[in-house]
Amino acid sequence: MSTPQPDKSPALVALDWGTSSLRAYLLDGSGRMIESAREPKGIMQVEAGFATVFDEITRAWLGRDPGLPAIAAGMVGSAQGWVEAPYLPCPASPDDLAGALVQAPGRRLWIVPGVLQPGDRPDVMRGEETQVAGALALGPELAADARIVLPGTHSKWARVCNGRIESFTTYMTGELFAVLRDHSILGRTAGSGPGRDRDAAFLRGVDAARGADGIAPLLFSARALVLTGGIAPEDALDYLSGLLIGDELRSALTEPGAAPRLIGEPALAARYAGALARFGFDGAEAIPDTAAAGLWRIAVAAGIVKTTKTEVA
Amino acid sequence: MSTPQPDKSPALVALDWGTSSLRAYLLDGSGRMIESAREPKGIMQVEAGFATVFDEITRAWLGRDPGLPAIAAGMVGSAQGWVEAPYLPCPASPDDLAGALVQAPGRRLWIVPGVLQPGDRPDVMRGEETQVAGALALGPELAADARIVLPGTHSKWARVCNGRIESFTTYMTGELFAVLRDHSILGRTAGSGPGRDRDAAFLRGVDAARGADGIAPLLFSARALVLTGGIAPEDALDYLSGLLIGDELRSALTEPGAAPRLIGEPALAARYAGALARFGFDGAEAIPDTAAAGLWRIAVAAGIVKTTKTEVA
Repeated sequence: MSTPQPDKSPALVALDWGTSSLRAYLLDGSGRMIESAREPKGIMQVEAGFATVFDEITRAWLGRDPGLPAIAAGMVGSAQGWVEAPYLPCPASPDDLAGALVQAPGRRLWIVPGVLQPGDRPDVMRGEETQVAGALALGPELAADARIVLPGTHSKWARVCNGRIESFTTYMTGELFAVLRDHSILGRTAGSGPGRDRDAAFLRGVDAARGADGIAPLLFSARALVLTGGIAPEDALDYLSGLLIGDELRSALTEPGAAPRLIGEPALAARYAGALARFGFDGAEAIPDTAAAGLWRIAVAAGIVKTTKTEVA
Repeated sequence: MSTPQPDKSPALVALDWGTSSLRAYLLDGSGRMIESAREPKGIMQVEAGFATVFDEITRAWLGRDPGLPAIAAGMVGSAQGWVEAPYLPCPASPDDLAGALVQAPGRRLWIVPGVLQPGDRPDVMRGEETQVAGALALGPELAADARIVLPGTHSKWARVCNGRIESFTTYMTGELFAVLRDHSILGRTAGSGPGRDRDAAFLRGVDAARGADGIAPLLFSARALVLTGGIAPEDALDYLSGLLIGDELRSALTEPGAAPRLIGEPALAARYAGALARFGFDGAEAIPDTAAAGLWRIAVAAGIVKTTKTEVA
């Protein structure tokens, strides 16, 4: 008698293909990563065409194993992408996503749809649904009831119930910060040195937003505090960052729910965790990028993973 | 017996000198406008130097009447201006402003200070204090208790009690709109045509903000509505404008107070009046630009207006 050996041969190419970057993973028959690649070939940078970019980043893998299937999530499935994978209305489960894949023309590549929250004030996500699916695959205890936060240019707060994305809200926090830093008086009058006490400035911004009823009357304080000597110019952008992240948290946390779980880039997740602590959520756990796990989960449910005959004694 | 004739000879040059433009008024001995001029010579565009720009715009008037005094308000008195006129803390009355004028070097020109609201979250104004002084001069009934709104790049809401600016709040509404329109995904994905029903889109944005608790979870709807066909791309920026102005009003009106009075450019004031109506403030009266009236009021109080001997029979 022998236990089955895990299958370590390539079984799936998984692509996280967003607006500004393309990440590719070669996964084995257990969903573990064998190799990965990254190119600055987001959907805004594919002058050569989607098929050419796909062929280039997968050349070595498909050259060795031409039958390998591929799956992709992100803006590649948008109207501006390779082929449109229409939004699935929520509530939506990983299995629902798996049932709505759209194949790219001429390739063994399937694209995950985004998710739409209908209504008077609709909302959309594309790529994050796959991250959520990955988080649920890695942490099955989240399926019953979870609040998953994906900080970034457009932060998403997703509520998960019974293994499905029940509802979600987008906050343009990262983009708002970038446009105010790069194009407003707040950025022009901030200093660019190393800062005196950037963490304290960040938390001061968080606290100001926590005690307010919206960002509108707060934003200009990032200018007035510099003018009146209340903050060092070099710390002003951290204060602004705190205002914006604090306002996102204040707004999102007015709705009761489970303790937030963070997914994403460690430095940003750490900032969010620090801010969450000011709202009473200490030690918010950050889960690293879950795109590959989500792509694997959906591909398995869709039955597109390459199966190999394994020797069983 | 004869009644004294109003003095129609030049008595004061009044300058509204802001970041991006310079307006000059020649006022008679009753504060009425004789002539005016406007140049795109805000404090960011004075390569020739402040004195040269001042001499140019006043040349004809001071050439005829070299003894004519001048007064200026706005960013010309900031640290980046000609000479710094330090902020006066509020509460501040027009007489307080008159008592704190700062003379420009080498010219018979006095500069009005800005006003500072001290505290943990300070706020500043420079130029608007003079507009408020003008509103009080033109509408003395406002002195007892008024809420004066100056819409713009940085909207100011000033509370007037007993003839003084008691407190105020700055909203970066206009600048926020401009940076989101010009540099964010909201502007990039909006249409640029004539629009289908721009007024309705504006009021839809106002109503969304009125019923929410801050702009954070609303901003992205200006994108999602376009994506899902809920709004015409050409109307999306009006919806965004409604969101931002609506959020300013929601925030400002949480504090009880007198019915808001608007000062400023007619088209923008009309938009604010339309939005105010959705909050139950119908028919908000808009007062046109009051800078000249405010400069006159402060100059008289400071005793710098040129007096002429008038013939009395």
